[in-house]
Amino acid sequence: MLPGRVQQLVRMFARLPGVGEKTAQRYALFLISRDPDSTRQIAQALLDVADGVVPCVRCGNIAQLHPDLPSLCAICNDHKRDGSILCVVARVQDLLSVERSGAFRGGYFVLGRLLSPLEGINAEDLPMQKLHARIRDPEHPVREVLLATPPSVDGEATALLLAQQLEDMGLTITRIASGVPHGGDLEFADPVTIGRAIAGRRRVES
Amino acid sequence: MLPGRVQQLVRMFARLPGVGEKTAQRYALFLISRDPDSTRQIAQALLDVADGVVPCVRCGNIAQLHPDLPSLCAICNDHKRDGSILCVVARVQDLLSVERSGAFRGGYFVLGRLLSPLEGINAEDLPMQKLHARIRDPEHPVREVLLATPPSVDGEATALLLAQQLEDMGLTITRIASGVPHGGDLEFADPVTIGRAIAGRRRVES
Repeated sequence: MLPGRVQQLVRMFARLPGVGEKTAQRYALFLISRDPDSTRQIAQALLDVADGVVPCVRCGNIAQLHPDLPSLCAICNDHKRDGSILCVVARVQDLLSVERSGAFRGGYFVLGRLLSPLEGINAEDLPMQKLHARIRDPEHPVREVLLATPPSVDGEATALLLAQQLEDMGLTITRIASGVPHGGDLEFADPVTIGRAIAGRRRVES
Repeated sequence: MLPGRVQQLVRMFARLPGVGEKTAQRYALFLISRDPDSTRQIAQALLDVADGVVPCVRCGNIAQLHPDLPSLCAICNDHKRDGSILCVVARVQDLLSVERSGAFRGGYFVLGRLLSPLEGINAEDLPMQKLHARIRDPEHPVREVLLATPPSVDGEATALLLAQQLEDMGLTITRIASGVPHGGDLEFADPVTIGRAIAGRRRVES
């Protein structure tokens, strides 16, 4: 029904996460109904990212490619941050969430994945060597590792493995708190969350 | 937080219908986590569409651009179809839906928009001249116009206007049926739909 070029664009959009064929077709038909220059602008933005954005060589965050220098992200380039505390996250999205909170001013390490036996992601698939090298980097010594993988089955398993593997490095190893979220209601919190909120209770200082 | 090129890509994705900033960021970060060649392929598909896809000169459906010939869509190029009955739809998506039903083998006319006083779309914004010219095309005479705008407020208003404007052209003017959809439940149908199903009742031939 649709010309081959349009079908190809629909297939491309359908590669995006959460985009099925109907949505992909909606995107394609929307663009076709607009000025072709607006479609060209999106294409150019994609090419600019493909050609000029790389993982940060130090932490795995997103960095602008520098042809002559090692490509460091804005956080690793920020010398005002405390590089001695390292927040380990699963994905760049999680790093952005932690940044938005404004509660953390240290460095990061992006794992890129979590342990997931169901998806066949095992211990050897995690970037452990890179993490060790980052912690041992003599120019940026680390004293605390904050494990900020999500409080899900895979995230907890990953945090546990990392804690074990980093045990002998003489570091303080911490884990983000899990409990009833801000603004949340105990009535609607699941039992595991309530259990964690109680297990992780803190003394109220008066 | 994100490099400028990534922010630009997020802005571009956020132009797509139904895509907010969070979803746009999800798409961008997904692509960055993949092979850059896959991002270049999407860019190429967009450029191919921008450079090679145009509205069909006869009906407004999507057509592959032909540098030397008038660009006609696959339906207008199909001489086995009955060009004497013209189905008027609001959008290319609606044309695709009618085609999928297999119930119509005539020609189409895509309005591109519906009357919508709230959005400031008035009678003079509809392509009436083009529709008249299509109906009067001596090579493809039309005897019936099937108004297939949606049974919504805007769609009904548009159908009514078109019926009035085409009144004196000596055509049969028809409207798609509106009623309880196939597989639908009377219990959950809204009162307007039930009312239309009753007003549009047909004699059962035995």
